[in-house]
Amino acid sequence: MIYLDNAASTKPFREVQEIMCYAMENIYANPSALHKQGFLAANLLKESSIFFANQLGCAKDEIIYTSGGTESNNLAILGAVNAYKRNGNKIITSVIEHSSVKEVFNYLEQQGFEVIRLKTDLDGYVSLKELEDNLDEQTIFVSIMHVNNEIGTIQPIEKIAELIKKKNKNTIFHVDAVQSFGKILFPIKNIDLISISGHKMYGPKGVGILYKNKNTRIVSLLHGGGQQKNIRSGTENVYSIVGMHKAGEIVFANLNKHLEHYQKCKNYLWKNIEQNISDIKFNGASNGAPHILNISFKSIRSEVLMNVLEQNDIYVSPGSACLVHKKNKNILSFIGTSEEYVNSALRFSFSHDTDIKDLDKVVDVLKKEIPKLRKVTNGGK
Amino acid sequence: MIYLDNAASTKPFREVQEIMCYAMENIYANPSALHKQGFLAANLLKESSIFFANQLGCAKDEIIYTSGGTESNNLAILGAVNAYKRNGNKIITSVIEHSSVKEVFNYLEQQGFEVIRLKTDLDGYVSLKELEDNLDEQTIFVSIMHVNNEIGTIQPIEKIAELIKKKNKNTIFHVDAVQSFGKILFPIKNIDLISISGHKMYGPKGVGILYKNKNTRIVSLLHGGGQQKNIRSGTENVYSIVGMHKAGEIVFANLNKHLEHYQKCKNYLWKNIEQNISDIKFNGASNGAPHILNISFKSIRSEVLMNVLEQNDIYVSPGSACLVHKKNKNILSFIGTSEEYVNSALRFSFSHDTDIKDLDKVVDVLKKEIPKLRKVTNGGK
Ligand SMILES: Cc1ncc(COP(=O)(O)O)c(C=O)c1O
Ligand SMILES: Cc1ncc(COP(=O)(O)O)c(C=O)c1O
Repeated sequence: MIYLDNAASTKPFREVQEIMCYAMENIYANPSALHKQGFLAANLLKESSIFFANQLGCAKDEIIYTSGGTESNNLAILGAVNAYKRNGNKIITSVIEHSSVKEVFNYLEQQGFEVIRLKTDLDGYVSLKELEDNLDEQTIFVSIMHVNNEIGTIQPIEKIAELIKKKNKNTIFHVDAVQSFGKILFPIKNIDLISISGHKMYGPKGVGILYKNKNTRIVSLLHGGGQQKNIRSGTENVYSIVGMHKAGEIVFANLNKHLEHYQKCKNYLWKNIEQNISDIKFNGASNGAPHILNISFKSIRSEVLMNVLEQNDIYVSPGSACLVHKKNKNILSFIGTSEEYVNSALRFSFSHDTDIKDLDKVVDVLKKEIPKLRKVTNGGK
Repeated sequence: MIYLDNAASTKPFREVQEIMCYAMENIYANPSALHKQGFLAANLLKESSIFFANQLGCAKDEIIYTSGGTESNNLAILGAVNAYKRNGNKIITSVIEHSSVKEVFNYLEQQGFEVIRLKTDLDGYVSLKELEDNLDEQTIFVSIMHVNNEIGTIQPIEKIAELIKKKNKNTIFHVDAVQSFGKILFPIKNIDLISISGHKMYGPKGVGILYKNKNTRIVSLLHGGGQQKNIRSGTENVYSIVGMHKAGEIVFANLNKHLEHYQKCKNYLWKNIEQNISDIKFNGASNGAPHILNISFKSIRSEVLMNVLEQNDIYVSPGSACLVHKKNKNILSFIGTSEEYVNSALRFSFSHDTDIKDLDKVVDVLKKEIPKLRKVTNGGK
């Protein structure tokens, strides 16, 4: 099979499986237990925290483990907004966030917060001008994603962070880095909260990280045993954390190699689609994330083309996997893409082991099938 | 090593490891993805739901996956109390709950709810009389655990459920069954919400279940992609769910065999401690859960005895692993155990593969060390 849906979920490295089994077999005590077996388990967590802290350039106590990107986003946003709500009522996000950010803001809006949703240009860049205009004394919180999961646009997160702190140093800034961590390096300076997910970086599903600056307060979502300094109760997901740690080690040891490979895949597929298929539109910024290529094929519904590819054992997505549950619109409708291209987009997303030769097959199928599909569509009209 | 801390966490079955690796290697797509690979992953979740639904005697859509017992308890309690708060202000629990229930009630009390905490008798049974007296029109929610994690007392949950619904059929009843699921069967009749955790039944950590009766409403804790019918957003922890499913299959296929083995271990160790060591006190009900044995050794602090056992490669806990973070008191102080026995308790908890011969070694160590420790203690006074 040709799996090009790596922005939805990646295949865990073999080493991830191995170390998880090792831990299940040998270090299965409760990390809160006061005996040596418990300490061994707690030590796995500590080693993992040291590793991720080093990658981010923070202290190990600023790493909080969660059940994934969705919980990290919820904990960051609900946690900080509830902690700082006495300081103001205004919170800012953008129109292109993942649903695990978007829906939390919708919820907070229902609770009475004033929500500003920054618009973007046609490439998907949020308006810094609009951000600047909206930052004031009342603004307690801003959440802007780093790499967009559908079109790969990379926000200038450093600049945004600086801008926010310049206008109001008390405004808490959260970054959803689920699609960028382990792909694009960025300094955490001026960022208070960062969300990370294991299964987007060749680790297991159901595990994630929230980086929380030590000076940032958040209210807990889960009450209980007081694990993780009482910020996130619940027996830690030791095996998955160990797996995510191993994935991180491999990813960061091969960062440049992987990046080059993603970019090579992206450029190759993009160029070949351009050369062989008419009436297409590249979506996003041309210097977007290397692992995501989003292209619209005029007059063909995304689902139809996805199914045709599937029949050829090629797997891609029309956009975010999460959109399916809520019948949400895809990101293109929010960034001003013209109607005819909004519902004909496919996202191809690459892995460290995507085979360039497979991309030839993808282009062959598209070349063969798209004219047929367009004939049907046009004939049907 | 002799690991007798299975109430804190169990070692996953080898088959659990194997199936998790199989899924990581072969079925790693996002279960929300609309292509065949996504369906294969979604199907794993469905099969698992069918299995657990069959064990509980409910419909598969009544199974919600969470990140563990702590999240299940939080989601059940916060979710239902928030959903029904217009109906009343009174909520009931007991004094012997796990901290992931207790702390949620403390939080709700701060929010203005009237919290009733049922007392227990010396064996740890909650007072049904007190429960009955407190159930009224204002009572929207009751949470009572099935098997206590420290002393193993089994609450008559069927009777409690019936009593609650008789007094107020609209009162929602939640049961923390983390220590009983896969050990003691019980009918879900009259129970609206049940919490289950993977790592207490030879499955992975960081995964759990909330059974939610289809007629019971709960407000979500996590907002986002709308997975799990919008009750619990976030990419499902497919690998761990598959692992928990496998663990459940083995556990339920061997239920009687396991129960007999736990009971044999418990009776054997109990009898031998009684015959060889003076001034001890058995804690809990004599017909408590077969996998938990809690005994106090007069004049010896739990931690000291735990450390001595640890030096002999024997691992037990003084009580709940979670107590460490909050310096909470153990359960004995809440059920009226006399002072001299409260801080000298050890919990021995058994596994399906606990070796009876190992229990002889435990008794040998206790026999040899306890008199020495008591000499020191008494001499020091
Ligand atoms: C940008 C972004 N944020 C958050 C998430 C949610 O993470 P998770 O799937 O771990 O819940 C995803 C992926 O689904 C994502 O792409
Ligand atoms: C009775 C009881 N409830 C809830 C929990 C919490 O479950 P988890 O460890 O999966 O968060 C535990 C164990 O820690 C428990 O023993």
